[in-house]
Amino acid sequence: MEQDFLDWLLPRLPNDPRLEVGPGDDAAVLRPPAGRRTVVSVDMLSEGVDFRLGPECHPRQIGHKGLAVGLSDLAAMGARPEAAVVAVCLPRVGGGALARDIAAGVAALAATFDVAIAGGDTNAWDGALVVSVTVLGSVEPGHCWRRDGARPGDAIIATGRFGGSILGRHLDVQPRCREAAWIAARYPVHAAIDVSDGLSLDLARMMKASGTGALLDLAAVPIHPDAARLSLADGLGALDHALADGEDFELLLTLPSAAAAELLAARWPFPVALTRIGTVTAGQGLSTRAADGSEVPLAPRGFIHAFAD
Amino acid sequence: MEQDFLDWLLPRLPNDPRLEVGPGDDAAVLRPPAGRRTVVSVDMLSEGVDFRLGPECHPRQIGHKGLAVGLSDLAAMGARPEAAVVAVCLPRVGGGALARDIAAGVAALAATFDVAIAGGDTNAWDGALVVSVTVLGSVEPGHCWRRDGARPGDAIIATGRFGGSILGRHLDVQPRCREAAWIAARYPVHAAIDVSDGLSLDLARMMKASGTGALLDLAAVPIHPDAARLSLADGLGALDHALADGEDFELLLTLPSAAAAELLAARWPFPVALTRIGTVTAGQGLSTRAADGSEVPLAPRGFIHAFAD
Repeated sequence: MEQDFLDWLLPRLPNDPRLEVGPGDDAAVLRPPAGRRTVVSVDMLSEGVDFRLGPECHPRQIGHKGLAVGLSDLAAMGARPEAAVVAVCLPRVGGGALARDIAAGVAALAATFDVAIAGGDTNAWDGALVVSVTVLGSVEPGHCWRRDGARPGDAIIATGRFGGSILGRHLDVQPRCREAAWIAARYPVHAAIDVSDGLSLDLARMMKASGTGALLDLAAVPIHPDAARLSLADGLGALDHALADGEDFELLLTLPSAAAAELLAARWPFPVALTRIGTVTAGQGLSTRAADGSEVPLAPRGFIHAFAD
Repeated sequence: MEQDFLDWLLPRLPNDPRLEVGPGDDAAVLRPPAGRRTVVSVDMLSEGVDFRLGPECHPRQIGHKGLAVGLSDLAAMGARPEAAVVAVCLPRVGGGALARDIAAGVAALAATFDVAIAGGDTNAWDGALVVSVTVLGSVEPGHCWRRDGARPGDAIIATGRFGGSILGRHLDVQPRCREAAWIAARYPVHAAIDVSDGLSLDLARMMKASGTGALLDLAAVPIHPDAARLSLADGLGALDHALADGEDFELLLTLPSAAAAELLAARWPFPVALTRIGTVTAGQGLSTRAADGSEVPLAPRGFIHAFAD
């Protein structure tokens, strides 16, 4: 029952000074940080698309992933996480245990990133598991990272390595909130996006929004060992996986070339790699250099949410 | 495809001065109203539980209902609606048309209540339709209506009439935001809740949260004509439907008896009824008066989200 779950959950949620009214009322009441904007994003995960319950996916990981993809959106805006609300549609059998595991996964990541769990909605139905997480963050007015601000000549910087997340990393998403906050405090980022559907696809989206193109340095694209492992299994190139696989949840940033050089030379306090993977151009779409030095177009590829009319 | 839907949707969404960054980026950026708290609530609706697609339910109504139940939560906090984000899991076939109809239903109600559509998430899967709406509102610090503030002696006031919403009203939810704002500006409301799961069940929840009981005047409970119609069909009493049916989305408020009398005598500018249906007591649970004048317990009944461990 929903009430049994709430009786279990509510005493376990830590008090948070940002909450004037916490979970358990009709809505939560938050004290927004003075002088800052509110940043909001929602993500919905469903069984069979974003996770498959089974030996390789514990329900705690679904809670983790649900919050992590939202925090990744906040990171891509240069925003600081503040709070989250979580809604679930549970299968009727096993729903109680699932709900507690999901909540535990959410709560653990929320504690790591200092996110107040403000509320939620618990439902049951005859279908499969669906989880929706809405995150709230904050940012100084005019300081958020948009995806439409890239300028020709900007360097394109990527966090982390790409490809093969389906081998398990897609459940263990590590949002780059701290990395984003560190960069936002020091460097003039012009545009940013997080890679949810594929490096080349999301880069192409950022370029399209900015009215720019991108010249990618394919030799510089950081390939995750998982991409190489997957490549052995399916025969596709590891670079292809790095460019087209979804759910890396790394950040792509553009900033002036000189600032990017400073960033890459700085004392970067995080273990995740920072790599310059290309340059913003005055053109359209993505391109790369062929062996003879000429520029050739590169078709963006990635995960598409497909549905028919 | 998701992109086709976004290409259709984004140009149709009105600009809103509350949005520093609107839909289409990794997250939206809102300008929160100065000096106010942020109120947040999430609700998830699923096919077969909250609606059944078919001749009696147009997909536009699902969008309407999704936003309306969230706005009802804001009304129950005495909060002013500000913004909403909407996530959907669409069936793969027909998902595009569904998404556009749902968006149209959301947008129409958003325009009515001056809500900025800040963003969303569009997914497709092999399951049935799921819609999740997160609403953001605002309220003055310390002025929200909690459900735990009822005091013995308070009058219990209800908006509207109860029962039989399943005959169609449950899709045509009219959130009581304007009524709540009017009352909040004039009267000292101690506690409030909206009736989503049943008048007696939600009243019992508010009383439990407040550490109080309620003496209900059953003769005063406003019975909706739908409850009487349903009663003819199923043989249950109309009052039973009024007390136990879910999804009325009316408000229950407690306030000092004298203030309640003033409210009931005031020039109330809305067509919806306001009725005193009982009194908060120092006891526990719900009770009513038998014909001989003695107090007898009344078991709360309503809709329970049922799932097994």
